[in-house]
Amino acid sequence: MAIKLGPNQYGKAQNHLVRVYRDTARHEIRDLTVSTSLRGDFSAAHASGDQAEVLPTDTQKNTVFAFAKEKGVESPEQFALELADHFLATSRVAEGARIEVDEVTWNRIEAGGKPHDHSFVQGGGGTRTTVVNVDGRGADRRAHVVSGLKDLVVLKSTGSAFRGFLKDKYTTLQETDDRIMATSLVARWRYEGTDVDWNKSFDGIKALLLEKFAEVHSEALQQTLYAMGEAVLEQFPAVQEVKFSAPNKHHFLVDLSPFGVDNPGEVFYAADRPFGLIEATVIRDDATDAGSAWHAVPGFC
Amino acid sequence: MAIKLGPNQYGKAQNHLVRVYRDTARHEIRDLTVSTSLRGDFSAAHASGDQAEVLPTDTQKNTVFAFAKEKGVESPEQFALELADHFLATSRVAEGARIEVDEVTWNRIEAGGKPHDHSFVQGGGGTRTTVVNVDGRGADRRAHVVSGLKDLVVLKSTGSAFRGFLKDKYTTLQETDDRIMATSLVARWRYEGTDVDWNKSFDGIKALLLEKFAEVHSEALQQTLYAMGEAVLEQFPAVQEVKFSAPNKHHFLVDLSPFGVDNPGEVFYAADRPFGLIEATVIRDDATDAGSAWHAVPGFC
Amino acid sequence: MAIKLGPNQYGKAQNHLVRVYRDTARHEIRDLTVSTSLRGDFSAAHASGDQAEVLPTDTQKNTVFAFAKEKGVESPEQFALELADHFLATSRVAEGARIEVDEVTWNRIEAGGKPHDHSFVQGGGGTRTTVVNVDGRGADRRAHVVSGLKDLVVLKSTGSAFRGFLKDKYTTLQETDDRIMATSLVARWRYEGTDVDWNKSFDGIKALLLEKFAEVHSEALQQTLYAMGEAVLEQFPAVQEVKFSAPNKHHFLVDLSPFGVDNPGEVFYAADRPFGLIEATVIRDDATDAGSAWHAVPGFC
Amino acid sequence: MAIKLGPNQYGKAQNHLVRVYRDTARHEIRDLTVSTSLRGDFSAAHASGDQAEVLPTDTQKNTVFAFAKEKGVESPEQFALELADHFLATSRVAEGARIEVDEVTWNRIEAGGKPHDHSFVQGGGGTRTTVVNVDGRGADRRAHVVSGLKDLVVLKSTGSAFRGFLKDKYTTLQETDDRIMATSLVARWRYEGTDVDWNKSFDGIKALLLEKFAEVHSEALQQTLYAMGEAVLEQFPAVQEVKFSAPNKHHFLVDLSPFGVDNPGEVFYAADRPFGLIEATVIRDDATDAGSAWHAVPGFC
Repeated sequence: MAIKLGPNQYGKAQNHLVRVYRDTARHEIRDLTVSTSLRGDFSAAHASGDQAEVLPTDTQKNTVFAFAKEKGVESPEQFALELADHFLATSRVAEGARIEVDEVTWNRIEAGGKPHDHSFVQGGGGTRTTVVNVDGRGADRRAHVVSGLKDLVVLKSTGSAFRGFLKDKYTTLQETDDRIMATSLVARWRYEGTDVDWNKSFDGIKALLLEKFAEVHSEALQQTLYAMGEAVLEQFPAVQEVKFSAPNKHHFLVDLSPFGVDNPGEVFYAADRPFGLIEATVIRDDATDAGSAWHAVPGFC
Repeated sequence: MAIKLGPNQYGKAQNHLVRVYRDTARHEIRDLTVSTSLRGDFSAAHASGDQAEVLPTDTQKNTVFAFAKEKGVESPEQFALELADHFLATSRVAEGARIEVDEVTWNRIEAGGKPHDHSFVQGGGGTRTTVVNVDGRGADRRAHVVSGLKDLVVLKSTGSAFRGFLKDKYTTLQETDDRIMATSLVARWRYEGTDVDWNKSFDGIKALLLEKFAEVHSEALQQTLYAMGEAVLEQFPAVQEVKFSAPNKHHFLVDLSPFGVDNPGEVFYAADRPFGLIEATVIRDDATDAGSAWHAVPGFC
Repeated sequence: MAIKLGPNQYGKAQNHLVRVYRDTARHEIRDLTVSTSLRGDFSAAHASGDQAEVLPTDTQKNTVFAFAKEKGVESPEQFALELADHFLATSRVAEGARIEVDEVTWNRIEAGGKPHDHSFVQGGGGTRTTVVNVDGRGADRRAHVVSGLKDLVVLKSTGSAFRGFLKDKYTTLQETDDRIMATSLVARWRYEGTDVDWNKSFDGIKALLLEKFAEVHSEALQQTLYAMGEAVLEQFPAVQEVKFSAPNKHHFLVDLSPFGVDNPGEVFYAADRPFGLIEATVIRDDATDAGSAWHAVPGFC
Repeated sequence: MAIKLGPNQYGKAQNHLVRVYRDTARHEIRDLTVSTSLRGDFSAAHASGDQAEVLPTDTQKNTVFAFAKEKGVESPEQFALELADHFLATSRVAEGARIEVDEVTWNRIEAGGKPHDHSFVQGGGGTRTTVVNVDGRGADRRAHVVSGLKDLVVLKSTGSAFRGFLKDKYTTLQETDDRIMATSLVARWRYEGTDVDWNKSFDGIKALLLEKFAEVHSEALQQTLYAMGEAVLEQFPAVQEVKFSAPNKHHFLVDLSPFGVDNPGEVFYAADRPFGLIEATVIRDDATDAGSAWHAVPGFC
């Protein structure tokens, strides 16, 4: 009976890096959590423990911190691309590299009526993400960038319905014309190519996603997600597809009638579990081949 | 050998309530997590299981949701006071009631260039908190309000030192004139009386805490906290004392010299554990008696 | 520009179900967290909000609880297969169903010198998991079962080395002949077919994984994982492949020399982040086609 | 207006220490998370940033790791007492020291039919805890030990009722003679003196708590907790009082009647929030003075 090594990868997960730019008195900071990994034919390491081709995860960690100074952090995407190419140049047996970056937002603290030079408060509005997968080197190199955001918690207090659904013997849900719709959004979009203004594109897409969430009168969370993805594809030519993972954070109208109290859409119980979970891809009809772009992207593959 | 019931309390924890105000097309929402509890001589319930004097936690939950409509949610403090008085009126053997409220912030989504009427995105900048303890009824009633915030994550990229400290044989830490200082702040302040504009007071204290954090050149986190508390006591006469719990979220300068790279305060590793933990009270010399104000306030007592 | 719906699924996540068997005084309990989802051509729901073909997630939830009584819970795998087939029979446009189950272990409490009939304490040793994907119905039906475990935290205090690895300019790690090796193991294995004694197979594989972890003298975590997977494939013919995700929970030997204290492998600092992350597949050379078996299996795809 | 420093403490939280005993081939391990803190008149540090009397939290961390070798870890209590006395001897202005230790359990892996010498799997059954508070030095020294456990998840599938409770206009709960009772128990007990066999005492009290939970026919969670505490006080003379914090992890019987299915106590939905929360102290009538024993004990004060 023959047994072999199949798909594999290894690396250092969750290097929490803070990069301070202090060239002037007005500091800038980038706060990134970076995970790196390499994949390829690492059979020797697995079968016999031979590490001759294994670049230690500790070295990967060192490189992340060194590159923050040597290459700088202009955007999560640029930083991840630099790291991926470097690791592929160093590790001969690696066939691909995957770099994942989460970035949290810091806003300047208001002091004395103006934004402070070097004091910050961590903001809400979700975490910016990117997963970069690079395959090969030189002429064979192909780089994939999937950017996105997660933990973007949004809510509509009206403008959402749910009715006309399929019923069977286990259905007890009542139809409704007016409910709260809320989710903690994960959205990830795949770019074709790397000739992109990463920061500007991120800001634009995030604003557009929020705006569409607000404006669409929703017949279902599915419909809202689709409209959000469609808008991104229409306005951002470099984006080939958008994937969403959206828990339906149920807000149940509380029945106050036992206490003689009316409740016309005013008092809700926000439940934790179970929750609806809607996952959808909105994609161009003529989308480019995704290749390994979605390799090990958390929640999507 | 005689054994007896000592201090005790019981209630319903973490009722997650969302209250929508929809009197006009421009909705307002309040998102509260409410925990209620009663304390007193509940010996019969403990010794023999006799529940005749026990108002079930399920009833407490119902009351939270009913009161959201019947009394409304103007502020966490007002809502908590209403609940505490009600439970004490209902439960004859209860000697005190404790209501804890956490409130998260929702900001309006920007759509079509203006804030949307009924679509919101959850904000950062920490969670507003209050713990209300009421003892007794009628003439004997005494109400205590401790308000505050938690999870307010702040960082200074310079303007912080740590030197001149006590040394012993286990000391290896180097002194520094310039470091990152960061914390996830918990601050709680005790009001005297209840004749307070709760929302205005909260907004003012939060802004002041942030401003002081930014402005103080810090010789230690202790010094910064003290200055923050002092400012609150100076500007808010109703506040008797301020308590802080502040993890020192260490940002270690990474040694890049093995790679021939200089690192003049630019690249940091943000560590998780262990962390310094600084807890301090700043109090008026002539502060009023706290009574049960700090009873079961998370992290302080 | 044409835009369309791509891969999608929807369902109810994390239904926490406890099933009590009380046919005799000696109760049995099963504690399952069940997530269900359907995938297929749900374009109408996304494009126009038409829910006519959408079986609500609320109905899916009801079905989970009803089936716990109607079909019973003999094993997570059997229960998941029943649900998947039912949902595919109900939803005409669904092409596949995915059911994920996590099961926690309850042990009987020892009372009066013997295991109690109806009192339990939750055990350690990880969580049992299964993800079932069924495609199609009737003659076209194909059922896939991937079972496994997660959160199995294991540690070797010796018998682990790491040396002979690839070095570059960013390498500072020292080689070692003796270290602590620890991980919080996720292992998932794919069965061919469904004619399996699910409970017996799970127990056997779990015991074997633990035994191999203990017995292999490890030159690297990769080598240990491979040996564990190989043993499973050798002893369990129904298993086609085994996938592992194993954080390297670093235990760093503390340098006590500044205090004049020797530390020959006795005092360690257990770090949180960053951590090494090793992911590997061990597979038969002639493994059957996986089909959709790994569809949306958390951490693997 | 005079403002001053009130109660305060500072230290290093959550030093995760693993101590290996390898004197023979059969290793022993202790896995402790240790938090240390000092309290006293640290006004200079707060008011002016003067650190001359501040023993850095970094030094406290170093001491924890050094003492693991120099003093050894026989029990969490002994280890905490050594640390507390040391810090009070080092810091002149400290008036008290508080050391908190959590210990997780590792069981030997079964390999080749017998427990392995140096391979372990992390166990369930809760976390062992201790909080030691020492005030003063020399003749004035007073040491307090509060030991306990947390995260002990227990469940009874029958033998629990809830009826005869107080009702008001907000009561909708039905009485029941038979329900599931489950909790994630926190129990902490205060010892008088330190002449205790800490490990033996912990094992005995834990076993007794479990046994009582199993054996008591419960009219309410309060009654069960009281009986558990009473048993500890009766059998362990050194224990002065026992405090409990017990979330009532609600298991709601699912109404399957809409589907024509009977549910006689067999299918339950395990809810997350809100949850009942029962906190109670069982104490000797002639208990010794607690002094600072409960100072900053998580969840109790």
